[in-house]
Amino acid sequence: DQSLGEIPPAEDVRDSLSLRTHTCGELNVDHVGKWVTLCGWVQYLRYDLFVILRDFSGLTQILVPQEESASKVKADLCDLTVESVIMVTGTVRKRPAGQENKEMPTGEIEVLAENVEVFNVSKKLPFEIKEFVKKSESLRMQYRYLDLRSSRMQKNLRLRSQLVMKMREFLCNEHGFVDVETPTLFKRTPGGAKEFVVPSREPGLFYSLPQSPQQFKQLLMVAGVDRYFQIARCYRDEGSKPDRQPEFTQVDIEMSFVDQEGIRTLVESMLQHSWPAEKGSIQVPFQTMTYEEAMRDYGVDKPDTRFNMKLTDISDIFSSTQVEFLRSALDQPEGSIQAILVPCGAVRRKPSHELSLVLVRTDGTLKSPLKKLLSASVTDVLIKKTQAQPGDLLLIAAGTLHSVRPLLGSLRLQCAELLESHGRPVRDPLAFHFLWVVDFPLFLPKEDEPQELESAHHPFTAPLPEDTALLFTEPHKVRGQHYDLVLNGCEIGGGSIRIHRASEQLYVLKNILKEDPSQLTHLLEALDFGAPPHGGIALGLDRLVSIIVGAASIRDVIAFPKSFRGHDLMSRAPDTVSDKDLTPYHIYVKWPTKQGGEEK
Amino acid sequence: DQSLGEIPPAEDVRDSLSLRTHTCGELNVDHVGKWVTLCGWVQYLRYDLFVILRDFSGLTQILVPQEESASKVKADLCDLTVESVIMVTGTVRKRPAGQENKEMPTGEIEVLAENVEVFNVSKKLPFEIKEFVKKSESLRMQYRYLDLRSSRMQKNLRLRSQLVMKMREFLCNEHGFVDVETPTLFKRTPGGAKEFVVPSREPGLFYSLPQSPQQFKQLLMVAGVDRYFQIARCYRDEGSKPDRQPEFTQVDIEMSFVDQEGIRTLVESMLQHSWPAEKGSIQVPFQTMTYEEAMRDYGVDKPDTRFNMKLTDISDIFSSTQVEFLRSALDQPEGSIQAILVPCGAVRRKPSHELSLVLVRTDGTLKSPLKKLLSASVTDVLIKKTQAQPGDLLLIAAGTLHSVRPLLGSLRLQCAELLESHGRPVRDPLAFHFLWVVDFPLFLPKEDEPQELESAHHPFTAPLPEDTALLFTEPHKVRGQHYDLVLNGCEIGGGSIRIHRASEQLYVLKNILKEDPSQLTHLLEALDFGAPPHGGIALGLDRLVSIIVGAASIRDVIAFPKSFRGHDLMSRAPDTVSDKDLTPYHIYVKWPTKQGGEEK
Repeated sequence: DQSLGEIPPAEDVRDSLSLRTHTCGELNVDHVGKWVTLCGWVQYLRYDLFVILRDFSGLTQILVPQEESASKVKADLCDLTVESVIMVTGTVRKRPAGQENKEMPTGEIEVLAENVEVFNVSKKLPFEIKEFVKKSESLRMQYRYLDLRSSRMQKNLRLRSQLVMKMREFLCNEHGFVDVETPTLFKRTPGGAKEFVVPSREPGLFYSLPQSPQQFKQLLMVAGVDRYFQIARCYRDEGSKPDRQPEFTQVDIEMSFVDQEGIRTLVESMLQHSWPAEKGSIQVPFQTMTYEEAMRDYGVDKPDTRFNMKLTDISDIFSSTQVEFLRSALDQPEGSIQAILVPCGAVRRKPSHELSLVLVRTDGTLKSPLKKLLSASVTDVLIKKTQAQPGDLLLIAAGTLHSVRPLLGSLRLQCAELLESHGRPVRDPLAFHFLWVVDFPLFLPKEDEPQELESAHHPFTAPLPEDTALLFTEPHKVRGQHYDLVLNGCEIGGGSIRIHRASEQLYVLKNILKEDPSQLTHLLEALDFGAPPHGGIALGLDRLVSIIVGAASIRDVIAFPKSFRGHDLMSRAPDTVSDKDLTPYHIYVKWPTKQGGEEK
Repeated sequence: DQSLGEIPPAEDVRDSLSLRTHTCGELNVDHVGKWVTLCGWVQYLRYDLFVILRDFSGLTQILVPQEESASKVKADLCDLTVESVIMVTGTVRKRPAGQENKEMPTGEIEVLAENVEVFNVSKKLPFEIKEFVKKSESLRMQYRYLDLRSSRMQKNLRLRSQLVMKMREFLCNEHGFVDVETPTLFKRTPGGAKEFVVPSREPGLFYSLPQSPQQFKQLLMVAGVDRYFQIARCYRDEGSKPDRQPEFTQVDIEMSFVDQEGIRTLVESMLQHSWPAEKGSIQVPFQTMTYEEAMRDYGVDKPDTRFNMKLTDISDIFSSTQVEFLRSALDQPEGSIQAILVPCGAVRRKPSHELSLVLVRTDGTLKSPLKKLLSASVTDVLIKKTQAQPGDLLLIAAGTLHSVRPLLGSLRLQCAELLESHGRPVRDPLAFHFLWVVDFPLFLPKEDEPQELESAHHPFTAPLPEDTALLFTEPHKVRGQHYDLVLNGCEIGGGSIRIHRASEQLYVLKNILKEDPSQLTHLLEALDFGAPPHGGIALGLDRLVSIIVGAASIRDVIAFPKSFRGHDLMSRAPDTVSDKDLTPYHIYVKWPTKQGGEEK
């Protein structure tokens, strides 16, 4: 028990492992009279009266002693600059009546400095810490170590660490998962155009940084590990894309002897278990929707289910229309006319030729370029079917299903944003809507060669059992055992039950995807030596955390992110490398010529 | 409550998340009468009588039903091959009296198969799972997914996962550490000759895979994170070296406002907390020794303290010797004659000119080429000083301290191995001797240019406070605040208190190391904007786990290691990459010519 004003016994100090006895955020009236040592940054200096000291946990007011005998301490404190680093030892005092600060957790106390050690005097900052968020992102990135001092970034990093810790406890301690590290120096996957290469010391041989541990996690199931997880670093070279990172992190999970429901239940329980208490609780099971339903109702495979404004098929209203562009839309294969209703959508957008805009006037009549082409009865049915109210906006699109749905799906989101930017709330900013999307097509026509098929996700996804026979007859109709996890309209994860028989995997690779199976010999062989049925999922951790904390970008939940061009603006990576340093790797640089070609 | 023979309610099955109701290792007489579903691999088939089924948890005997009505089940089971994967449903029975297997945890029961589903019939394996350990390592690596099925490898991977989990709990839950992921696409560090390069899409610009998150962890301290840890993937391109891996994992830790003792206490408590129960407990605090003491007594900076056989300085015995090679050794600067005593060392080694071999005969006389050169009094003093007993061996080396100590240090280890290979135990194979080595020199003469200094560890290590003034006068005498953690003679970690003032860091880089500080501008700038005193450590996880489990190589505790040439023998990485795939990276391959040079 520490008595007033005494130096605590050495063991107590040592227990804290660091030079401080307390953190700046934890002091309160219970500590009054205690002799404490605090370490931190000077947040604020008020003349020669007090200093506000900050560490990761909060702020404490340090009182500058005014007696002649303490002139050295006073001089040290008064010479400081903002963001200097000091250690202060002194006695906790109750603030004089009327000087308490109710806004501040430590606002009832102050520490009278009796000793101070100055570790570092800070140079003048490029700008104030609290101003960082308002500055250009490139400036924040250049001085990332200052940006990270903001309470917002401190909170984001700590919440991320806590979330991952709870996921680990859930998987490892409660469900017998084994945390296995898999290599990141791997070989290029067939068609892996987005994989960084890493030259080796053998001429012409390269490693590749994998986009996910997909092959390794499956091989671990063949190896009998039964339940694997890893917080896995993954790499994807997509050049310049906003809000993508060349390296990112996924919560990577794989289980043997499991079905879709098993994986989904696991993920739901894991998220429920690890969800930050301050963000409320989440309800399980999550809503589930087929890919077909998602496209039909929301025009997108990752619907934001926090608001309605679903797509309505109004083709039948126009079945006998003679309006030229509607007629021609309906006459084509999979032709369709669809609408979304924007409640109180007093918003103007430039209509394109595929899209028509219908405003419902307060008297129930329509204001639209379409109006003169529509009969009164069609107008009535249209208003009835879409349940349009005066002041609403109808957006109508005509064309093939494949164009109409994504168009309205995207407009739906833009309308929500537009309404919100005009102060009309559409989505609850505190709500978390999780959604499983299932029954995706297993294969899609290749964009450039629509006669050929490619995997909708990856070639290891198993077909739905009831669709397996179609593999051999109508592969484009096969639905896969793939599931996507969507949160507030963002895809935060995806996974599948995998093919666990070599013959089926070979058929898919060779006969359907027309790929060279020799690159996957090791996996095909493995499936032949006793592979269990297995499946898994990968959650995008950066994205998940950014949605939880309400960050605009994943860069706000990554300690040292790259710019959208893939640069580290703080250290200036990537950087040049001397020819001498490239020699062991048997490569040289092809410099582009002025003509746009390349020279040696 | 499940009654005998009944199918458990659906919730129970779902709770287990997988198709099984129980694992193969958990069944015992308490389960008799229960209706269970097991999934696993066929370990062994005995005619058409029984099947031994294996999963990660153990083995269960499955009884093949013999009734006519179960002929389908019988046929399915009898058609299986070893390592096939099945799901069996049936009733747990007590084995008939006399047929129990005491060796097997489930040896009192068996499961009468009533239903079987065959997931996969295994092809004939290249060799039996239990034989793997005896096969060549390259074969084990080629079929790593089979090798991992062995109980040894299963145990190693699970122990590693558990150990890391406990370290995380200790750091994150008990000591407020924040798990922060740092980038692995970084820029080349000055002189980073062992760093893999990763070409970017900008001509001539390369990322680099860092050897450790050293700069980032220090920047996180400047950022006010206070306590950071990461189980960090690191990369080192050392070409072909036995028992090194191009990627490896370290437990990376950094703290602010801490001293050496704080870090050492933390690491000791962490290891104590996470130590596997089955390996006994470890005592803290660990022994501490200065670098000078380690070199003096063991001739090496990472002494194996499980056994004695320390170096003894016997120079004074020979102070007036006229024996030519001893005289010339002593006459040079730092000349020394030292000995180690090998108890019962009836071992013959070829003496080199620097090394003399003295056998102590049972009558107390010496057998040695030296003998005739030594007077009786010198012989007496020698035997007394080294406490040599009849039957012992004395190894005597003469030369400079810098050559004598490492020579005897290395012989000491070779003698221990030799004695053990002859059946004389020297080291307790179950003992874990931790040791801190401290007070290393901060700088060492460069090997090729001994007039210049290089960092003994890295340029960020702070000097001992009492040696700081020597930086400006005699830098070669400065001791650093570096500490190595040694376990059973292996360095398993190292760290230091870092320089936290820009001016000091700049002086070391520029004036002592003669390095271009512009490559570290970001770090030097950061130290100027309020850097706290900080320090940390990195533990080599692969090495630590391999010592704990008693593995001969770190490859035995890594799921998918590379061969000593850096190859993945399973997937055949690294691999060729087409010119087309290299084009976006603006590089091409310099093929070696037959003459040994290189051509385009």
